[in-house]
Amino acid sequence: MTPAKNAPGGAKGAPSAARRSEASRRAILTAAVELAGEVGYAKLGIEAIAARAGVGKQTIYRWWPSKGAVLLDAVLMLSGAEAGAGGGVADGAAEEGATGLPDTGDLEADLKAVLRATAAELADPAFDGVLRALTTEVINDPALADAYAERLQAPLHAMKRGRLVAAREAGQLAEDVDLDVAVDLIWGPLTNRWLQRGGPLTAEYADRVVETALRGLRPA
Amino acid sequence: MTPAKNAPGGAKGAPSAARRSEASRRAILTAAVELAGEVGYAKLGIEAIAARAGVGKQTIYRWWPSKGAVLLDAVLMLSGAEAGAGGGVADGAAEEGATGLPDTGDLEADLKAVLRATAAELADPAFDGVLRALTTEVINDPALADAYAERLQAPLHAMKRGRLVAAREAGQLAEDVDLDVAVDLIWGPLTNRWLQRGGPLTAEYADRVVETALRGLRPA
Repeated sequence: MTPAKNAPGGAKGAPSAARRSEASRRAILTAAVELAGEVGYAKLGIEAIAARAGVGKQTIYRWWPSKGAVLLDAVLMLSGAEAGAGGGVADGAAEEGATGLPDTGDLEADLKAVLRATAAELADPAFDGVLRALTTEVINDPALADAYAERLQAPLHAMKRGRLVAAREAGQLAEDVDLDVAVDLIWGPLTNRWLQRGGPLTAEYADRVVETALRGLRPA
Repeated sequence: MTPAKNAPGGAKGAPSAARRSEASRRAILTAAVELAGEVGYAKLGIEAIAARAGVGKQTIYRWWPSKGAVLLDAVLMLSGAEAGAGGGVADGAAEEGATGLPDTGDLEADLKAVLRATAAELADPAFDGVLRALTTEVINDPALADAYAERLQAPLHAMKRGRLVAAREAGQLAEDVDLDVAVDLIWGPLTNRWLQRGGPLTAEYADRVVETALRGLRPA
């Protein structure tokens, strides 16, 4: 994945210093992921992340302006690691070279596979904690929301939209459907259910959302 | 609206004492709404709410176990006040005697009116602040999420679903459509766009979501 702008990728000094910086950076992001899963948002502090990563607090503040910025890079790191695994909310969040969504030629089957994977991922405590903490910061920090939109949401949206464009070209979507709204319609309900703990994140629910979005609510 | 379980509705003493308690309760909830809009979630504390309401911190802790619990009652109070105003996310959140959603016999027009009102409400700083603060607490507090689901989400969901049941009876929805998923599909995208600040909360967006949900994505 592309290093964050304020990451030590361009640090001066010997290659070994750059390697040490990159190792520290990954240790910090990994610590943030682990702690978010273990203690939750309310108790997640820079101090605890630094202690877990074995670095000083100042190292974190040198590279990131806020806890939210650390969490965004942590989720981007997870996304990059997951990019080859197929499906999932985090998939393709790597800013460059992301694999697209599966395209077997069967839109409904592909969307179900993707939403099932997303549901499983959101139900996984390892993802749930850090995504919940990041979302909390995004909700309350407009500047972080901009960075989140640009670095995570926009690439994800483009990837989802790309799959719908291919489906439209294959005659599986109506010519005049608004593809941006279609993305919101397909992916919105699962996100809400997860965030508000509105119900279980099952494969059945994922399937039902895809089926309902594709066919619409009106009588045939 | 129905007083919260731990509110002073059943307080012993003269009627004037009960009235004073109810006045304090409303002052606290109003202070929470105002401060959430003014300072945002991160700086919203029980101490500031107490100071604004002109009560002691202990008065708040006697009636509510947490900041999140105060915010839930504050949103329920707003909802009750708004219940006659037509549409909106907060509409009908009053636990009893809520007006239903509008039913002119034209489902699409009615849903557009409701979602437009919700979009306007979410874009209003007076609602945005307290709803964002409550959602933040709900995301990170499973016990509060249960109370939120029971006291706010369930009545709202039932009201929305009721409008869809009437539409199905009128032949405007397919017989076999899953009405719970339909509610998520219609109302989910706007909630997400608001929470993640993913785009402007316009009447056009509200209309497009309703149209797309009703007709579906597939070619006719």
